[in-house]
Amino acid sequence: MTAALLEQYRERIRTELDRVVDFWLKYSHDKEQSGFFNCLGKDGKVYDELKYVWLQGRQVWMYSRLYRTMERFHRPEILDAAKSGAAFLQKFARVQASSGPGKCAFCLTRDGRAVKVQRTIFSECFYVMAMDELSRITQDKEMQADAESMMDRLIFWVQTDSSDLGRPQLPGDPPINSMAVPMMLLCLVDQLTEGRTDVAEKYKDLSGWCVEQILQHIQRDGKAILENVTLNGKELPGCQGRLQNPGHALEAGWFLLQYALKKEDAQLQKTAVDKFMEIPFHTGWDKQHGGLFYFLDVDGHCPTQLEWNMKLWWPHCEALIAYLMAYSHSREPLLLDRFKQIYDYTFSHFSDEEHGEWFGYLSRKGEVVLDFKGGSFKGFFHVPRCLYMCEKHFALHDQDVTDVPVTDQFA
Amino acid sequence: MTAALLEQYRERIRTELDRVVDFWLKYSHDKEQSGFFNCLGKDGKVYDELKYVWLQGRQVWMYSRLYRTMERFHRPEILDAAKSGAAFLQKFARVQASSGPGKCAFCLTRDGRAVKVQRTIFSECFYVMAMDELSRITQDKEMQADAESMMDRLIFWVQTDSSDLGRPQLPGDPPINSMAVPMMLLCLVDQLTEGRTDVAEKYKDLSGWCVEQILQHIQRDGKAILENVTLNGKELPGCQGRLQNPGHALEAGWFLLQYALKKEDAQLQKTAVDKFMEIPFHTGWDKQHGGLFYFLDVDGHCPTQLEWNMKLWWPHCEALIAYLMAYSHSREPLLLDRFKQIYDYTFSHFSDEEHGEWFGYLSRKGEVVLDFKGGSFKGFFHVPRCLYMCEKHFALHDQDVTDVPVTDQFA
Repeated sequence: MTAALLEQYRERIRTELDRVVDFWLKYSHDKEQSGFFNCLGKDGKVYDELKYVWLQGRQVWMYSRLYRTMERFHRPEILDAAKSGAAFLQKFARVQASSGPGKCAFCLTRDGRAVKVQRTIFSECFYVMAMDELSRITQDKEMQADAESMMDRLIFWVQTDSSDLGRPQLPGDPPINSMAVPMMLLCLVDQLTEGRTDVAEKYKDLSGWCVEQILQHIQRDGKAILENVTLNGKELPGCQGRLQNPGHALEAGWFLLQYALKKEDAQLQKTAVDKFMEIPFHTGWDKQHGGLFYFLDVDGHCPTQLEWNMKLWWPHCEALIAYLMAYSHSREPLLLDRFKQIYDYTFSHFSDEEHGEWFGYLSRKGEVVLDFKGGSFKGFFHVPRCLYMCEKHFALHDQDVTDVPVTDQFA
Repeated sequence: MTAALLEQYRERIRTELDRVVDFWLKYSHDKEQSGFFNCLGKDGKVYDELKYVWLQGRQVWMYSRLYRTMERFHRPEILDAAKSGAAFLQKFARVQASSGPGKCAFCLTRDGRAVKVQRTIFSECFYVMAMDELSRITQDKEMQADAESMMDRLIFWVQTDSSDLGRPQLPGDPPINSMAVPMMLLCLVDQLTEGRTDVAEKYKDLSGWCVEQILQHIQRDGKAILENVTLNGKELPGCQGRLQNPGHALEAGWFLLQYALKKEDAQLQKTAVDKFMEIPFHTGWDKQHGGLFYFLDVDGHCPTQLEWNMKLWWPHCEALIAYLMAYSHSREPLLLDRFKQIYDYTFSHFSDEEHGEWFGYLSRKGEVVLDFKGGSFKGFFHVPRCLYMCEKHFALHDQDVTDVPVTDQFA
């Protein structure tokens, strides 16, 4: 029974990944000015020509990863698209202006002029992901060095001096531990160190630091995962301190689990599942209408984010990865139940049978309220990464790993 | 029939204003550290102690205006609260850091330390409103000078050099005409010039410039009001250029109508009604579920703002003012119908009979989805200003103006 069910999931996920890749290959490439259109309507039509740097980086990474690790995506058009996107980023992503060296724009015009710069590190993080992954295919040492040099800049901003990011130092706004930052750096270390013992040695302390920072978000005597805490792991006052983001906690969960599996750290594996997968399920699942809430307040106040009760695609993507990864390694039936529950909601609500790809934004009751397939926050990333990771984990189950090159980090 | 209906509206609005004032008097005052709590739950409880500078300024302005122009609010506790808020602002609102002179924080801790600075002008605008209005009661010349000096700084930022605001100049982000800026300045000129011919003379050109800038937002052969246009009044590309905000257009409508009535400019009065009141009604009213949409795309694309189809309190407040003001002067029955339609939706959906004040955020279908009464964008401003302005206009109707001092600009 379980085997038949898993096979059914696996088949659907495989088909869905093909359709999603086809959608972006068909609609997102800017054949005239290179790079990718990010803003695609429900039928793939471009409704805005702006190019978001982090989404460009994510698309380069995803194409390169699919090309490198899955036989059926090892196609010239996919590699060419990744190269075109990387060239666009190398040419245009960095802003000069008053920002410090390495600072990238958040958003560019179609022809690469900077429109907006964020005072955060995320554009730069996905620049690193993109360049590292592509350079593994092309063996381009300069591109690899570009990725590592940006990585070192990121570490400097996070651990030493953030003033180049342009945020004024304000007396009422001391630095905090926002979960996204150590999560992102842990993800980058995982990317950069795959198959490279020298690089792994270089970033050994950093990954330990990231894990420690992520674990600080376990609060309230182990009963809550909070998005923002003080630098020494205490709860912050007000809405910022009480904020819960179940999808983000689940993503942190599989980042931690993946790290713990590599390190063969059984205690950390247990923490990843018990704290970062079980807690967000219990607090985040909408028992009335199904799906995961986007934001919640740990004390039950109304969140102040207007979209708090909406059902977004990406928390569901992260949940699918988390529960399937956890089930794959523990074979604990409860975790398969969790996967099944998220899967049923996700595939019946987000996937668009008519035009392909997934809707991103549903009302609390599950109706599509924003019908575009790509926008400033939704690119070729969460959906295909989820489907890719799930497919890889199904391959682990039945040992049918003929199309998984040995270099793949997830094998 | 109409007279009876108007009397019924008037009575409800008067009662509602009393209840709203009572709510903020009771729950928002920080008796220990002065200033106002902005984040109030549905029952008035403080759920976050942060103090938003623009909301502090708005509350000082509103208390002062009510005290100065309505007999029943001419109470010491209201004046004292306004003074306390103004003192808090004068002491803490300005940030030093790297920002230019006069730059105010967006948000402060309870004890006045800067938490966030926005690269816009709105905190400073409401600082001017607050200081000017209060100084009219106290005859505090220094406070009046403080308001005027901040106003001159604002004009410099908008018309000469915005670099002190801290926005980097980016090649893909040329300056644009965003409707909020000329609207805000027109509102400030109206505030500062009331009853002062010398000041009116000083800002004469500025108000003409503001009106001209606002009128540039009439686009598509006079069939649409767009939020953002180029500096010379052309349509911008992409989502930014296609954005419509019906509530904001209606607010611009009554700002323009008020100005045109003062100037006895019949053509501008007609434009204010035909373009800035009729167009947003036809594009913005949700024919399926009632209420005004928050954002729309002029070409019918899905807006990218997650809250686009929500029903927010403030567009409905602005619509009530706009239609009642327009009806009061033209006695055109259609405008009373518009007022009635908005009134019925507003009072049956936003007003909270149990705890007082209004909910701010409804789903498209009209259910309350965020139940707090105050937050970072909702303070003691849109609701009481709407009720105050409507009450004043009802007073115009039946000439029962016994409680309206002659100095009131709206009489």
